[in-house]
Amino acid sequence: MAFCDTLKTYTLEEAGNYKIHGRTDETQYPLPLFYNGSGVEVNVTGSELWIDVEVNFDTYEPWIWTEINGAFMSRQMLLPGSYPLCLFRGMSPDTVKNVRFCRELQAMSEDNGCRLLVKGFRCDGKFLPVASKRLKLEFIGDSITSGEGTYGAREDMDWIPMYMSVSQNYAKIISDALDAEYRLVSQGGWGVLCGWDNDPRHNITSCYEQICGLAQGEINKRLGAGKAYDFAAWVPDAIIVNLGTNDASAFKQPEWREPESGRTFKQRIQEDGTYHPEDIDRFKEAVVNFLEMVRRNNPSSHIVWTYGMLGYELAIAIADAMDTYQRRTGDSNIAFLQLPNTTGETIGSRTHPGIKSHIRAAQEIIEYLETVYKI
Amino acid sequence: MAFCDTLKTYTLEEAGNYKIHGRTDETQYPLPLFYNGSGVEVNVTGSELWIDVEVNFDTYEPWIWTEINGAFMSRQMLLPGSYPLCLFRGMSPDTVKNVRFCRELQAMSEDNGCRLLVKGFRCDGKFLPVASKRLKLEFIGDSITSGEGTYGAREDMDWIPMYMSVSQNYAKIISDALDAEYRLVSQGGWGVLCGWDNDPRHNITSCYEQICGLAQGEINKRLGAGKAYDFAAWVPDAIIVNLGTNDASAFKQPEWREPESGRTFKQRIQEDGTYHPEDIDRFKEAVVNFLEMVRRNNPSSHIVWTYGMLGYELAIAIADAMDTYQRRTGDSNIAFLQLPNTTGETIGSRTHPGIKSHIRAAQEIIEYLETVYKI
Amino acid sequence: MAFCDTLKTYTLEEAGNYKIHGRTDETQYPLPLFYNGSGVEVNVTGSELWIDVEVNFDTYEPWIWTEINGAFMSRQMLLPGSYPLCLFRGMSPDTVKNVRFCRELQAMSEDNGCRLLVKGFRCDGKFLPVASKRLKLEFIGDSITSGEGTYGAREDMDWIPMYMSVSQNYAKIISDALDAEYRLVSQGGWGVLCGWDNDPRHNITSCYEQICGLAQGEINKRLGAGKAYDFAAWVPDAIIVNLGTNDASAFKQPEWREPESGRTFKQRIQEDGTYHPEDIDRFKEAVVNFLEMVRRNNPSSHIVWTYGMLGYELAIAIADAMDTYQRRTGDSNIAFLQLPNTTGETIGSRTHPGIKSHIRAAQEIIEYLETVYKI
Amino acid sequence: MAFCDTLKTYTLEEAGNYKIHGRTDETQYPLPLFYNGSGVEVNVTGSELWIDVEVNFDTYEPWIWTEINGAFMSRQMLLPGSYPLCLFRGMSPDTVKNVRFCRELQAMSEDNGCRLLVKGFRCDGKFLPVASKRLKLEFIGDSITSGEGTYGAREDMDWIPMYMSVSQNYAKIISDALDAEYRLVSQGGWGVLCGWDNDPRHNITSCYEQICGLAQGEINKRLGAGKAYDFAAWVPDAIIVNLGTNDASAFKQPEWREPESGRTFKQRIQEDGTYHPEDIDRFKEAVVNFLEMVRRNNPSSHIVWTYGMLGYELAIAIADAMDTYQRRTGDSNIAFLQLPNTTGETIGSRTHPGIKSHIRAAQEIIEYLETVYKI
Repeated sequence: MAFCDTLKTYTLEEAGNYKIHGRTDETQYPLPLFYNGSGVEVNVTGSELWIDVEVNFDTYEPWIWTEINGAFMSRQMLLPGSYPLCLFRGMSPDTVKNVRFCRELQAMSEDNGCRLLVKGFRCDGKFLPVASKRLKLEFIGDSITSGEGTYGAREDMDWIPMYMSVSQNYAKIISDALDAEYRLVSQGGWGVLCGWDNDPRHNITSCYEQICGLAQGEINKRLGAGKAYDFAAWVPDAIIVNLGTNDASAFKQPEWREPESGRTFKQRIQEDGTYHPEDIDRFKEAVVNFLEMVRRNNPSSHIVWTYGMLGYELAIAIADAMDTYQRRTGDSNIAFLQLPNTTGETIGSRTHPGIKSHIRAAQEIIEYLETVYKI
Repeated sequence: MAFCDTLKTYTLEEAGNYKIHGRTDETQYPLPLFYNGSGVEVNVTGSELWIDVEVNFDTYEPWIWTEINGAFMSRQMLLPGSYPLCLFRGMSPDTVKNVRFCRELQAMSEDNGCRLLVKGFRCDGKFLPVASKRLKLEFIGDSITSGEGTYGAREDMDWIPMYMSVSQNYAKIISDALDAEYRLVSQGGWGVLCGWDNDPRHNITSCYEQICGLAQGEINKRLGAGKAYDFAAWVPDAIIVNLGTNDASAFKQPEWREPESGRTFKQRIQEDGTYHPEDIDRFKEAVVNFLEMVRRNNPSSHIVWTYGMLGYELAIAIADAMDTYQRRTGDSNIAFLQLPNTTGETIGSRTHPGIKSHIRAAQEIIEYLETVYKI
Repeated sequence: MAFCDTLKTYTLEEAGNYKIHGRTDETQYPLPLFYNGSGVEVNVTGSELWIDVEVNFDTYEPWIWTEINGAFMSRQMLLPGSYPLCLFRGMSPDTVKNVRFCRELQAMSEDNGCRLLVKGFRCDGKFLPVASKRLKLEFIGDSITSGEGTYGAREDMDWIPMYMSVSQNYAKIISDALDAEYRLVSQGGWGVLCGWDNDPRHNITSCYEQICGLAQGEINKRLGAGKAYDFAAWVPDAIIVNLGTNDASAFKQPEWREPESGRTFKQRIQEDGTYHPEDIDRFKEAVVNFLEMVRRNNPSSHIVWTYGMLGYELAIAIADAMDTYQRRTGDSNIAFLQLPNTTGETIGSRTHPGIKSHIRAAQEIIEYLETVYKI
Repeated sequence: MAFCDTLKTYTLEEAGNYKIHGRTDETQYPLPLFYNGSGVEVNVTGSELWIDVEVNFDTYEPWIWTEINGAFMSRQMLLPGSYPLCLFRGMSPDTVKNVRFCRELQAMSEDNGCRLLVKGFRCDGKFLPVASKRLKLEFIGDSITSGEGTYGAREDMDWIPMYMSVSQNYAKIISDALDAEYRLVSQGGWGVLCGWDNDPRHNITSCYEQICGLAQGEINKRLGAGKAYDFAAWVPDAIIVNLGTNDASAFKQPEWREPESGRTFKQRIQEDGTYHPEDIDRFKEAVVNFLEMVRRNNPSSHIVWTYGMLGYELAIAIADAMDTYQRRTGDSNIAFLQLPNTTGETIGSRTHPGIKSHIRAAQEIIEYLETVYKI
């Protein structure tokens, strides 16, 4: 493309001023964007800006969205290759533009070849410092937090990247409203104790302490995904957990069986339709353990466990586990916040919360955090 | 008043067709309306309808509101005396009008002289049968359920009847949306274990099994307030409990001391700002006990404990108590539902939830009950 | 009523500080309230306030509503007689309460006996000065401005006072939003040229220059209704005309015939369904004439002609007449503002605009006036 | 890109089933998309679909957006070249997907080199017939109808393609709500008589009868832009005109002067701030002439002239011109509809209506058209 060749090319290091969003290994070059919500943000002058990316995948292509001066501008699928993407052109050269390039697709535990790397920029302007936001928020969740269903028609049921997002996700809505930076750790189908299908390996606890434990395989290893995450480097003011929905599903799903080992797992429901006490207890224990892990790594952060966007089945169990955690540890810097269930009016694609449900949930979390931070 | 003298006068018995709303002693004549939401409903033809009432009080005057064909029509203070009130006039005589006359003021534990009795009607039409609603709902609560703050300006702080209501109360909004009859048992300042000021006598459990245990004194006794309530005669499909807000206040208030006996009571907060474990335990025990009482009297009703319109402090404790109750009894026909906290945008008078907060809470309860009743 | 006898009784003159709302003959005692929106406003201390009124009617009873500190408090039918009404009781005696007692019912051209007079107050506090509002607004209209349909169920079709209001009327919503005093001149069924039924006497022009030309008969004459209105004493910042809806109806209604004189009148529709050019011309001429009359009496007021809450049929004709007026007079201090038509979603009783329609229309007028007054 | 090479390639003709949106020369291959809202729509089976496009421009790059099953999916800038774009991948092969590829950027009178052509598709499924919509709507307008300001932050003032759209445009919102196909003819800065800067060549009348008279130059000529538009081939049920905003601006702007000829043009404002009668008359005459042209070409279509999203200055003049048109022609199949002005709350970028303003305007037009089509 001839016309971006007249621009000056910058590696990230050469650009100097830029902000990284999302958990990543900041020592890597090019810079991997592992999670939905991961991205880079710059303040630039100049009439034109491009970003150089490197993209690949085996099955699930990454999607990205861009924002200029805080406004949604584009959203598109990325194809494999190493190429520049134009972020803006034809603008007044002297004004400073705040530009954000952001991954829409969750970390992909089901595609070890999926990757999105940022190499640098092409620009006829200057890179200026990016201001910090007032707050830092970490969101931990499942498909809801991966934005499944926030794009797509109600009848759309395919499990594909284009229906996932951060751009219409409660995490982004909340962060924008509270002037916060955000990091997401989420995976569709995963729970606190086990996945929606009783797979006990699909618990977020198992990968919370790595940069991106969800991204497996040799390539991701080289990209630093498996390294220990440096919690001290980015201390969240609040951690919003949104887990339990898949743990509730597991009770209604058949037993999981690992073909290789023959190992099985099943959260049981009793004949009278209630949860088996032993299984609800091990779910609660998993909640307690996860709270302990989160607290250990984030001593000062307010932790709010949100729940309910896809049903209230485990609300009492979660709150009870939080009570147990509180009694064991004396930690009172936690809260339980039930969110409005998704209705026929607010549902999106894949029978997941749509944008209206995300807006509504966000509203309650915003209001709650405002009481905590006396905004 | 000359012009209502041309109408025919009916006692309730003579009218024959009418529906009583709210817990009362239906054997009494005139008929006492004890609670906000208590009232009488008729379907009548004719051009004009009056109601004969008997009213008295020592301090707190009753307010009433009227509804015609489901639409709010009037709201006014009632003064002492025995007199007729015109409900409509000048209407087409042949059409059937559905008319509801309804007490706005909560049962008044602080004014033994307060009473509102219905004697009968004056009409030039006929009384026709009143259809049943699809559901029956019982609401149990405190000042929120008494509608404190649903009328009045934000700066209004007096504790007086005119700021209380059922006409702008979540209980009514929910019932209208779900085509339900409703009964309320509520009292401002009361809790599950104790009142907002640590007064341990101010717990709803103590009066739930009487028709209106809140209405004391000789007159109320004669009106049947103290009689055992006949739970079997009106079986709620769902019971919506909204208690805990005053129990949370008690932790922040000074000790209660009964002048006569010297008896004291205090829910303690520890030096580190957390609830004293013994006191939180007796609160939870009170929740369990109350759930047991409600279930004993309503074996088939779905019980949903709602909480949060004035803060989330005891959410975890309530849910934990519900978990204990569930484990002890095996009763899974219960749910916990957190409601949106009242904000600067939704607040009403007396720093209580305003109509906007009631509408928002109602919306979540409506949506929840729709999932239960597959509407 | 014993307990208001301990209060001190004040005539209006003795109270001294009070504000009159609505066009009236301020030299009268007792003070007549002719229009919906007419009323008295006081700032008082004390624990209790009553108002002394005198009420009568032949067919259509007046309704009133009250407001305390700007919040809706009560709404009720008034019966014939001379009696006190309690406006509040039991309040903190030292705070200043702003209290407004307001007529809901339009001026009643169809009931010469209908009247509502204010004599004074009973109070244990003091009357303090009432502040002026930022703007003065005059609303001129028909049943829409009389609030027909703002109360009542959708199926309610009787033409009776209880369905009319100012309390849920766009005039009040606008005035509250803009901090404005308001005066209304409106009559259901009337137009600019003729009434909905082609009655040429039912044009607002004919009574605009009297205090209340709509109120006829001997009693109203004695009350000053027919006196010339003193336009200079209360100069509106803006005059909102909302007329034309009944003029549009007339084209579809049969000829009007005056029994006594045999005189007839009819706005004709042609065979092809269009308006007869002569008749549309005399309608336009009536619009021009009315604008000239309004301007003559209000030289400095901004005049905005609003239209459309019950259909857009005459929008072009009205705007064309305004253009003619503008060319003839050079007066550019006028505007035409089309309002959202009432829909199945926003309709009220009597197939008239409901409260949702009034809110929506008000929103557009508020936004328009904000551009005029640079609020 | 290797992985789309396994798909079968179809020219438009080979695909057979597809629907063209927007005015174009349907005899051309590749197919030019001239206007915002122009595009192609297919119903396909298969797991993957690509579209082959040819893109070029001198200054202003085209943007496009895509929709799958009626849901917004992507929006992006297109760079010069001839290449395939992936519309979806990884979907269930047997389901039928409705896919729409749509130009966001208005016809570009200021860039003769700007073009977007569709050549065909690549797919592993089958192309099935595309159903017709219930209604056909034509929208004629200026920058509002070109969607200027519907993307971008409030402070963004550059006149560049990325801030224009049909995807957040009232035309699309209305059409979706009414199940309508839509065609747009619009140009930022243009009016009925002259442009915002008094340029008399910038009137929509001058190019309404060509396929795309706005697209000039040799290339566009070859693409058929200048050919007479075949009005009979696509008969709109309603034509929504939204013009007048730039004509109002012209009164406040300096004289236009054509450098070559020295010709000048100016809509004059008089010393007292009012419009010069001669100039307002020639504006009105232009409105009448344009209505005559629209009617001549669309004998059966309902014509509604909407106005007001950026101020009401010419409302009376437009309505007066419509009245003149009606009297001259007897045509009553027209209406005037004032739209809510854009406020500080609803504004978008470039001080143009934002998405909230478009939604609000759309709502009123939807409601109006529903009364016309008795939906």
